[in-house]
Amino acid sequence: MNFDFYMPAEVVSGSGCVCAHSSLLPKLGKSAMIVTGQASAKRCGALNDVCTALKKEGISFLVYDKIGENPALSACLEAAALARESKTDFIIGIGGGSPLDASKAIAILAANPHLNGDAVFSLDFRCPPLGLVLVGTTAGTGSEVTAVSVLTQDNGRKRSITHPYCYAKLSFADPSYTCTVPFNTTVSTALDAFSHTTEGWFSKKCSDVTRMFARAALPLIWEGLVFLCKEKKTPDSALREKLYYGSLYAGMVLNKTGTAFPHPMGYVLTEDFHVPHGKACCAFLPELIKRAAEYKQTLLKEYLSILNASQDEVIQVICALTDLSELRMTTEQAKAYADRWDNLKNFSNTPGNYSKELSERLLLDLFVK
Amino acid sequence: MNFDFYMPAEVVSGSGCVCAHSSLLPKLGKSAMIVTGQASAKRCGALNDVCTALKKEGISFLVYDKIGENPALSACLEAAALARESKTDFIIGIGGGSPLDASKAIAILAANPHLNGDAVFSLDFRCPPLGLVLVGTTAGTGSEVTAVSVLTQDNGRKRSITHPYCYAKLSFADPSYTCTVPFNTTVSTALDAFSHTTEGWFSKKCSDVTRMFARAALPLIWEGLVFLCKEKKTPDSALREKLYYGSLYAGMVLNKTGTAFPHPMGYVLTEDFHVPHGKACCAFLPELIKRAAEYKQTLLKEYLSILNASQDEVIQVICALTDLSELRMTTEQAKAYADRWDNLKNFSNTPGNYSKELSERLLLDLFVK
Repeated sequence: MNFDFYMPAEVVSGSGCVCAHSSLLPKLGKSAMIVTGQASAKRCGALNDVCTALKKEGISFLVYDKIGENPALSACLEAAALARESKTDFIIGIGGGSPLDASKAIAILAANPHLNGDAVFSLDFRCPPLGLVLVGTTAGTGSEVTAVSVLTQDNGRKRSITHPYCYAKLSFADPSYTCTVPFNTTVSTALDAFSHTTEGWFSKKCSDVTRMFARAALPLIWEGLVFLCKEKKTPDSALREKLYYGSLYAGMVLNKTGTAFPHPMGYVLTEDFHVPHGKACCAFLPELIKRAAEYKQTLLKEYLSILNASQDEVIQVICALTDLSELRMTTEQAKAYADRWDNLKNFSNTPGNYSKELSERLLLDLFVK
Repeated sequence: MNFDFYMPAEVVSGSGCVCAHSSLLPKLGKSAMIVTGQASAKRCGALNDVCTALKKEGISFLVYDKIGENPALSACLEAAALARESKTDFIIGIGGGSPLDASKAIAILAANPHLNGDAVFSLDFRCPPLGLVLVGTTAGTGSEVTAVSVLTQDNGRKRSITHPYCYAKLSFADPSYTCTVPFNTTVSTALDAFSHTTEGWFSKKCSDVTRMFARAALPLIWEGLVFLCKEKKTPDSALREKLYYGSLYAGMVLNKTGTAFPHPMGYVLTEDFHVPHGKACCAFLPELIKRAAEYKQTLLKEYLSILNASQDEVIQVICALTDLSELRMTTEQAKAYADRWDNLKNFSNTPGNYSKELSERLLLDLFVK
């Protein structure tokens, strides 16, 4: 048994929580920079709520809305320079994983102007980051409660920063913001949360406390996935709520365990084949579950009992929702990724470990036909 | 559903964790003041481990070991003055609830010299507290993970400070330190943790996340209580471990819900009749459970199912371990507490609420014979 735990962000949750708890904002400063993408934060009402809350509290703000999917480090550097020039006290990220992860990097970069180019990944931080507030609008990433930020470098590769400086000071968790997320994004983000929990559940780093969060996450997310698979339409607000809080419980798992081989392998499908992140990771989840059946039978048994589903049913739902039957790569492409699988720490975080050879074999099996 | 959450302390756990993770200490400063009682921190080895860790990390330290049971605010003021004089960077509390709660107050008072006498209870803090490290040595208070500090004022009354400034920066949770706790203290501290979880479980403030922690706490603590009741001897190290981690899960509950009427009523038995804190609170727990049977049947059903015990069995074990059959007060004494029960927020945190009249009635029923 153990009780290792660290998640210092204050999470305030529930419909209307941004406006209801705006009084928490002045502690972070007098001027804010809102970081977001171009559309969803407006569509779901979160941007409007945050602006209303800031005005109410007399906090000045500017908006940086150039964060794209799989956020570019270059955009983060640009936003950080703007934050410094405008003497911003704190950053408010609004969005799904991309704007939230970008906001974490911006808060660090703004306070550490010596970090140019890819230097942010060195974790050589000299000053604590600007204050950070996160407002989630998708049920997937769980970034609201994690110390992880995943960015895309200039060379097109995804790379993560995991550091206590990535924690928000304050996270607003309002599930109603997820109600306008379109079907495909709902699927992919739910798959991401499911992948976090599943990869974490079978990780050797999964502690008692983490397992408790996983037990809470799994049924909530699974109910959503089964609905999405069967009904092929967006869920009602009650199921949205389950998916959203499920993604936060999943974030608490991810935070302690990190991910196994599906996540880094998924990056390849996102970078080179434009597969949305959650689907890309879940392409490799059936293989993880098969390895669990070989190396972690007791954990798999409890996992399936929590889901109230058989191994086949789980794999079936994941495959149906992921649906990469048309994705093809050449043998050369599959083999060219070899250098990425060298000494990957995610591999030792996989039931029975994982290897460069197994990764190559898996890509060939799945996508070279 | 919701996901309100805040517990910023970093918890490092497991046997030997203080020495294994000493490298976390230098972040807090170069000079420390250890705050403890007179005997138990030495007996259990925690004081020695902390001194070894500080020496290894080149951190100078002094020891203030005058914290008694139900820690006096006056001792905290004395220690805070000493911390200021000696230019202490951070406080390390070692012990059960008393030294840990005292350390929280000392860290605040040292940084806020304007707070004289009872002023600390006003929560009018001008500066953030000194850094705070907590090392628990009993399985009861859960103070390692809470924002609560309970002190005894000069007038002999217990009073609590609940404020984010009471959180530790770092908590070392080594269950092996609890192995030398004598039988009676083991019983009383386990009862305290059980009372925290039970009062929290039936509180209207109990959120989904809190309920999850309560579900983890209850079976661990209950197994310990049943053993203590039946075997009348100290538990082995495996059961000590369960009780200790159970007390931390219980602390996570307390942190969100606060307590119901048993805690403030228990203060009276401690102040005027010298009943140890955990036993004092549990004297009123059977009444809480009876109220739950009347007002919160569904929650009571799940509670009993988690414990795998009947309502009668729970009450029987609590009464046997509390054993205040010889405590007597006069009618006048029982009635004289009336002013304390006025508008007590803990009363509205009780199934079906609670009242001044019911409190008086309960004291008369239990102790006036």
